[in-house]
Amino acid sequence: MEVIDTIPEEDISNTEQNVASSSNDNLNDIGRCQEDKTFSSSSFARRRVQISTDKVEIGSLNILSAKFESLDYDTCENYPFLDEERKKGYKFVIQKSISRWFVFLLIGMITALIASIIDISIEELSQRKYAVLSQYVDKYVVEGMLYIPFLLWVIFNVIPVFIGSCLVSYAEPIAGGSGIPQVKCYLNGVKIPRVVRIKTLFVKSIGVICSVVGGLAGGKEGPMIHSGAVVAAGISQGKTSTFDRDFKVFRYFRDDHEKRDFVSGGAAAGVSAAFGAPVGGVLFSLEEGTSFWNQGLTWRTFFASVISTFTLNVVLSAYHGVPGNLNYPGLLNLGKFESFNYSFYELPIFVLMGVAGGLLGAFWNHMNYKLAVFRMRYIKKCWLKVLEACLVAAISATIGFLMMFLINDCKPLGQDPTKYPTQLYCEDGQYNVLASIWFQTPEASVRSLLHDPPNTHNALSLASFVLLYYILACWTYGLSASIGLFIPTLLTGAAWGRLVSVGLTQVLPNSAIVQPGKYALIGAAAQLGGVVRMTISLTVIIMETTGDISFALPLIITLVAAKWTGDFFNEGIYDTYIELTGVPLLSWDPPPLAHNIYASEVMSHPVVTLKCVENVRHIVELLRSTSYNGFPVVDPPITDQKEFTTYGRIRGLILRDQLIVLLIKKIFNETPDCWDEIDSNIFRDHYPRYPTINDIFLNEKEKTYSVDLRPFMNPSPYTVLHSASLPRMFRLFRALGLRHLAIVNDTNEVVGMVTRKDLARYRVWRHQGRIGVEELLISKEI
Amino acid sequence: MEVIDTIPEEDISNTEQNVASSSNDNLNDIGRCQEDKTFSSSSFARRRVQISTDKVEIGSLNILSAKFESLDYDTCENYPFLDEERKKGYKFVIQKSISRWFVFLLIGMITALIASIIDISIEELSQRKYAVLSQYVDKYVVEGMLYIPFLLWVIFNVIPVFIGSCLVSYAEPIAGGSGIPQVKCYLNGVKIPRVVRIKTLFVKSIGVICSVVGGLAGGKEGPMIHSGAVVAAGISQGKTSTFDRDFKVFRYFRDDHEKRDFVSGGAAAGVSAAFGAPVGGVLFSLEEGTSFWNQGLTWRTFFASVISTFTLNVVLSAYHGVPGNLNYPGLLNLGKFESFNYSFYELPIFVLMGVAGGLLGAFWNHMNYKLAVFRMRYIKKCWLKVLEACLVAAISATIGFLMMFLINDCKPLGQDPTKYPTQLYCEDGQYNVLASIWFQTPEASVRSLLHDPPNTHNALSLASFVLLYYILACWTYGLSASIGLFIPTLLTGAAWGRLVSVGLTQVLPNSAIVQPGKYALIGAAAQLGGVVRMTISLTVIIMETTGDISFALPLIITLVAAKWTGDFFNEGIYDTYIELTGVPLLSWDPPPLAHNIYASEVMSHPVVTLKCVENVRHIVELLRSTSYNGFPVVDPPITDQKEFTTYGRIRGLILRDQLIVLLIKKIFNETPDCWDEIDSNIFRDHYPRYPTINDIFLNEKEKTYSVDLRPFMNPSPYTVLHSASLPRMFRLFRALGLRHLAIVNDTNEVVGMVTRKDLARYRVWRHQGRIGVEELLISKEI
Repeated sequence: MEVIDTIPEEDISNTEQNVASSSNDNLNDIGRCQEDKTFSSSSFARRRVQISTDKVEIGSLNILSAKFESLDYDTCENYPFLDEERKKGYKFVIQKSISRWFVFLLIGMITALIASIIDISIEELSQRKYAVLSQYVDKYVVEGMLYIPFLLWVIFNVIPVFIGSCLVSYAEPIAGGSGIPQVKCYLNGVKIPRVVRIKTLFVKSIGVICSVVGGLAGGKEGPMIHSGAVVAAGISQGKTSTFDRDFKVFRYFRDDHEKRDFVSGGAAAGVSAAFGAPVGGVLFSLEEGTSFWNQGLTWRTFFASVISTFTLNVVLSAYHGVPGNLNYPGLLNLGKFESFNYSFYELPIFVLMGVAGGLLGAFWNHMNYKLAVFRMRYIKKCWLKVLEACLVAAISATIGFLMMFLINDCKPLGQDPTKYPTQLYCEDGQYNVLASIWFQTPEASVRSLLHDPPNTHNALSLASFVLLYYILACWTYGLSASIGLFIPTLLTGAAWGRLVSVGLTQVLPNSAIVQPGKYALIGAAAQLGGVVRMTISLTVIIMETTGDISFALPLIITLVAAKWTGDFFNEGIYDTYIELTGVPLLSWDPPPLAHNIYASEVMSHPVVTLKCVENVRHIVELLRSTSYNGFPVVDPPITDQKEFTTYGRIRGLILRDQLIVLLIKKIFNETPDCWDEIDSNIFRDHYPRYPTINDIFLNEKEKTYSVDLRPFMNPSPYTVLHSASLPRMFRLFRALGLRHLAIVNDTNEVVGMVTRKDLARYRVWRHQGRIGVEELLISKEI
Repeated sequence: MEVIDTIPEEDISNTEQNVASSSNDNLNDIGRCQEDKTFSSSSFARRRVQISTDKVEIGSLNILSAKFESLDYDTCENYPFLDEERKKGYKFVIQKSISRWFVFLLIGMITALIASIIDISIEELSQRKYAVLSQYVDKYVVEGMLYIPFLLWVIFNVIPVFIGSCLVSYAEPIAGGSGIPQVKCYLNGVKIPRVVRIKTLFVKSIGVICSVVGGLAGGKEGPMIHSGAVVAAGISQGKTSTFDRDFKVFRYFRDDHEKRDFVSGGAAAGVSAAFGAPVGGVLFSLEEGTSFWNQGLTWRTFFASVISTFTLNVVLSAYHGVPGNLNYPGLLNLGKFESFNYSFYELPIFVLMGVAGGLLGAFWNHMNYKLAVFRMRYIKKCWLKVLEACLVAAISATIGFLMMFLINDCKPLGQDPTKYPTQLYCEDGQYNVLASIWFQTPEASVRSLLHDPPNTHNALSLASFVLLYYILACWTYGLSASIGLFIPTLLTGAAWGRLVSVGLTQVLPNSAIVQPGKYALIGAAAQLGGVVRMTISLTVIIMETTGDISFALPLIITLVAAKWTGDFFNEGIYDTYIELTGVPLLSWDPPPLAHNIYASEVMSHPVVTLKCVENVRHIVELLRSTSYNGFPVVDPPITDQKEFTTYGRIRGLILRDQLIVLLIKKIFNETPDCWDEIDSNIFRDHYPRYPTINDIFLNEKEKTYSVDLRPFMNPSPYTVLHSASLPRMFRLFRALGLRHLAIVNDTNEVVGMVTRKDLARYRVWRHQGRIGVEELLISKEI
């Protein structure tokens, strides 16, 4: 890798308007970041140019992929839109509003129902599996043929994992993992292909059942959030591409703006179903993505969350045989806590545990990142992915088996509410503690660690469990299987938290304050905080899951300590994955010290523009020859004697999709009959997957026609002067959810375009103790 | 009042750039709203004009006051700013960031300390007062001279209320009431004069102690939120105008943008201290005001909230003699609840109670609104205000006395943890229940109603209490005294909620599910929801205050039902007061059906512009003769042959305050020496109260000098085309916190200015079953 400094006076467009042009230079932009402060503020000639490249080092976190496009949150106020508003009037506003509430109701209910189905399936299958295993262990331990239950366990693990992994690898790879990074990107405004399709939901649901039943170190909570998002996107659109059905309802919700609002509600409903945490759900949507928030949306999101947890509660209470008794608000049920007391002097301990969680989490993230890079490099084939998943499933069983075989931690029966007490080598009337931890879902294990009475677990078994599960969880996340990391992380944390309490009991033997459950909870929070680095929503989620509000302060202190410690080393695991995929996520704030980076440096040009009345052939050729998504509509330039090349005075902005629809519907000036049927719905029918230009066939005569773009374009797109600073554009993008921003000169003539990728390129850079603003590479690959 | 239809082709500027011009027509704009749909979309001639007026009907909710100005959330990227960024570099960013966290820490701590002082003072004084009263009642009841304790009670009430009311009426009227409407406006971006001054804080703190000790039907919780906001504003600026001290710290936080962030943290810390609800505090800041939110700010706000509740907890626990035991997270302490159970069939009951709360709340708001109008009309003199407050204080005592005198509700001693059991006419070994409700702070009464065992209260005493307290609370809110309405509203609601449980016990005599405390809580929530109409934050606040998460769903259902019912009739009480004051609050969403209202109709013109290099005399005269706050800096117009009058091509925007500073510092082209000392601090020294133009004296020679505005103006203000729609401008304002928006024509020449008031004028209008977009009046008065 060589360091290239600057390539003056060269302008490469690498924006959404333009898919990255290619070059074979393999740039390493780390060496040059210190000089970024010398960015010229006015001279165009001294502009630094970052050439996009096709060859990217796999595993680089400093790239943006050109293949991701933005959602468009801005309303296109064209004639059909205004016409609809005028014709349908206030009644339509009311109707839309009622429908919106209704859709949020459905989102909450259906998300909860899917969660219930997943939960009940996992419960039923796991119970059978572990009941059989427990019996077989106790049966064959007498005969000394423990390899039989071991092999059985391996088989019980590998078969479901094989099914789940095949589904994910072959049918829908986007359904792998927890789905939280993808949902986060979507909420941030990035279109991730196929992320909210029904097919993804199917694969995800079956995949997560298979993974959890298959004994992988993971949980069903993360996938629930993704499921909620898919449900929301599906219901709100009233159509499905997977089954190619259009139910002709909710057509007015078919645009990026509305859809994204629904998806944020769906994600919140998912969190709510997963953790029984409606407030946490709302805060998750807020913290993780939604940049423009309003009270109405908050309300509806909250509504969906509450409905979701309520529905789940009703269904699961009925399933557990106590229909009236609403005690199952979420999938993750940590059980009722007695109220914890804590003293002032314990707070430093919690901080230290937070720091430990941060360190462990940062290391976990680093290992997992290395593993992900390894996978990107070498495990590319689908069969290899499936093989790896099966291997991990087998190893999970092996580790569990070895632990319960080697560590003979016995406790008298009846003390611990374990379901399948396995005797193994214990004396009669005793059971093997480790077996009871392993012979249940990881979630039930978390519950055991939080609630088991003091002295249930000895230090050795806890320590070895922490070590092995830490590695196992790290290996598991990122497999080609639908599985989340909340549960294994909580489990690891709860285990070492309990270990801390065992240690503290040695120091303070008679202290009533050392409740093992409390320390297990703090450990779990610390580990989770160290890995995912969400703070506010996580605090609330844990508070809501445990049902204990008085414990807020210790949780917050722990989580903040964990986050700060972890952030010192690397990013949260979700962000790491997002960077690895090269998604152009816009962070909350523009990079600091960027006020002297101007639009003229950021924008991409040349720009392809259209005239107000444009020849059809020209449009077709333009769409074929470029991959731009937004075209400024301009008056032809008056003069070319400007400082910059201009492309005429801006009149509006038209999108590729809109042009495609105009061509399909043949709305040409020469075919005035078509103009009668024009309304907003012509653009909605094809949303969100418009045909490509290659699917459109026009005869030669039609190509000589012309089309008037003015009624269909967005007549007042946001524009800024070429002298606007990067933070100014950033805030505009972030606050308004823009997709395109036209850059104009003093006389309102277009000189360039800025898209999300142009802004996402600039990022504060602070590795190795040096600070600067770095420009990321943009690549077609990854 | 007569209906005037349209006044064609007349343009009146009534914006922040221009204080309302006056006219004596007294317009009633209700009759014309149905025609608003016919708003011309392009023809300027047909534009409807709303003439601003000086004579406003008192009590109108359809006016905007011209006296309120906007906060400016947009960063002015002028040369001193860029220079500072370049010179100080990343170190400065880090330093600012650390200072910011430190300030939030201080905000949390000091807010909590003030809350503690208020709480302890009230506690101590009230205890003495009620102990004496209880003794005297029991002493004189035997002698038949009950008028002595009655008069004593009246005196005990009137004296503190007199002090508090005098302070508020004469010293600082803005300290009256709960302060929540004012904080809400500030967070929305409106500068409310004197709202965050130290003096206000003093008056508020002493005032609230006086009011609560004086037995007014109110609480200290609302004022705490205001106090938190003042603390935040005070600390973050490192200076105080009240004491005229500048501590020379945190100078870089002296702009509207930073200050407002701190205030949102302070408000959250206030909520957190008041209710022990850190999450509720964050959500309050979010729900009630902050339109642009980012993760960093959320974080810091959360931090301040947690610190606040923690500090309060430590102090109050020490005060109550249990220093280690952190059980006092907030001022409002509803006590520990046993977990409530609820059944499916109770949900409809909760909904009905919510509806009842909504109805009662709406009626309460209506009555209070009428009362406020009455006060605006007739109780204008300060001594009248004080007199009214004292009268209410005396009547509060009288009502209490009459109730305990007339309703002989006796219960055996020891059943209820009342502090001063008053026997009155009860038999020995019994106490008067109503006396125990009245002889304590309203807050303690709420606690009694929530926790007293079943059958403590009989239906008659509850019913009469509800009726009288409902009226009393309504009369109290809006008095010239610092007092909040959370507690009396909760108290009224808890009382009728308990009444419901008494009724239900009659219907279902043997049901274990009818827990009076549960119904009292639901009633309290319903009543509060019906009055204030906050939902999300209120749910969380109540959840956190009661410490019971499992009860979230019933609370949400109740609150939503209450809000919807209430919203059908009128607005929440805070919003009513805001509208009554004519504050140009921007709602969350632009009015519907407003896409065909264009910038050219909304903007105000003529516009006063400045040249890039301007004569000093001209600037002085301009500042003297106008009251504009923002001036576009333009190149002189090239031609006047345009469709609209233009004022030249826009170069930037300069604020009145900046011009004033330039004049004070005499930064003229002819005095090049001054240019050396220019940095961002010259603008910060005077923030937020700049001298007026009349305070500046320049000699004749200086007036012939010229000043170059270009280094100081904002070089790239946001602009939109005259064809931009109202919702587009609205979103820009709301999302970016703008104060001025320049409207330009096709060639970037200024044609008008839009400010907050221009946008706030347009509001959806839906009284009396008709719908439209109404334009509010703008008035200098109110």
